[in-house]
Amino acid sequence: MRTRFQLGLDDLRQRLLRMGGLAEQAVDRARQAYVDRDLIRCQMVLEGESQINMAEREIDEAAFDLLAMQQPMAVDLRFILAVTKINADLERVGDQAVNIAERVMDMVELPQAELPVDIARMGTAVSAMVRRALESFIEGKVELAQAVLEMDNVVDRMRDDAFIQLVKTMNERPDVVRQALDALLVARNLERVADHATNIAEDVIFWVQGSDVRHNVPAEPSAGSAGQAAPTPGH
Amino acid sequence: MRTRFQLGLDDLRQRLLRMGGLAEQAVDRARQAYVDRDLIRCQMVLEGESQINMAEREIDEAAFDLLAMQQPMAVDLRFILAVTKINADLERVGDQAVNIAERVMDMVELPQAELPVDIARMGTAVSAMVRRALESFIEGKVELAQAVLEMDNVVDRMRDDAFIQLVKTMNERPDVVRQALDALLVARNLERVADHATNIAEDVIFWVQGSDVRHNVPAEPSAGSAGQAAPTPGH
Repeated sequence: MRTRFQLGLDDLRQRLLRMGGLAEQAVDRARQAYVDRDLIRCQMVLEGESQINMAEREIDEAAFDLLAMQQPMAVDLRFILAVTKINADLERVGDQAVNIAERVMDMVELPQAELPVDIARMGTAVSAMVRRALESFIEGKVELAQAVLEMDNVVDRMRDDAFIQLVKTMNERPDVVRQALDALLVARNLERVADHATNIAEDVIFWVQGSDVRHNVPAEPSAGSAGQAAPTPGH
Repeated sequence: MRTRFQLGLDDLRQRLLRMGGLAEQAVDRARQAYVDRDLIRCQMVLEGESQINMAEREIDEAAFDLLAMQQPMAVDLRFILAVTKINADLERVGDQAVNIAERVMDMVELPQAELPVDIARMGTAVSAMVRRALESFIEGKVELAQAVLEMDNVVDRMRDDAFIQLVKTMNERPDVVRQALDALLVARNLERVADHATNIAEDVIFWVQGSDVRHNVPAEPSAGSAGQAAPTPGH
């Protein structure tokens, strides 16, 4: 039988996954809004922000209640702290999606310009990073988290390329400076989403490896998790 | 007599203040580096980053140890969680300072340009926000934290002005597009520092008001903080 505390942990995990889904959806919508110059999707991203902010607060409160409920085992404690950190990063992923939507709204006012940057591809890579980071959390797998860290280098290169090409465009074509600037800022926002996915992956590694790395933590065993040497992602 | 737990809380507070000092110093140096086109200060910012990252990790570990040590009172729990959040924001303030330093290093390679933006003033405002946010934490004062939230609006306006003026410059003067872009990105980085200061202020409010707002949290009293209705910043 699962204790109230364990059920609370399950609930916390479920909430964070829903939050992750919202953040991922926001990035996908923002990318699609850029590609299709679609103001309706921009609006959806803006409206989704308050939902994400509310989810963030609820997760923080749930984590707080769990910590207040009983003396958690070290492994559960690490899990709960990782959740609060991942939570903050997901909320900021949502903020970046809002920033992108605002750029797109600026862009749509201007004549369409052919630009030397593949935002769609970069957005797809970044969404994959967020999804992979959440998977590494669900499965508690360090390998998946490591893969996210490697993907971050690829996205950084894409951003650098976009930067170089778009600055060149701005120099050569004064008529599309503002469009190029919008694209450059979107590329930067996507890079920041990738950074948040990287933070999440690092938090997963902290959570999964922590219990092996640190033996000097005095913690009383709690029912159901006594004697655990490693986290049990499914509990 | 102070318990080991209370001494741990004192230590955690001290560590966070040192971390705050490092982050604030990094922003000041980056701003000064921009103003003086000073590569040595840029280098100092880059070298300071690993110190900040190390401090972040140590604070997280100390917070973890405290949570594992005993069942904290609700008010102490909120304090510890606020510390971990503020900690993450301070680390990202350091990242922004690094980004600014990198922009300055790019800028110094280019001919100096007269630009319609007062980065020095914006940087001073942003540094003040970080300092004020840390003060609100030290003193546990919601009013100080509220003042930070108001300053954020001022910085946002400065950023918007900078944006409009610099885009105009880029359109009119192709010869200084890259310098204007560097300045624009620095303004954006400063705005992000302001956002982190705002996050910190919100965390202080969460910490200070939390114990008043939430009465339904079951927590055993710990020595020295039993019966507290409000946080005692000096404990």
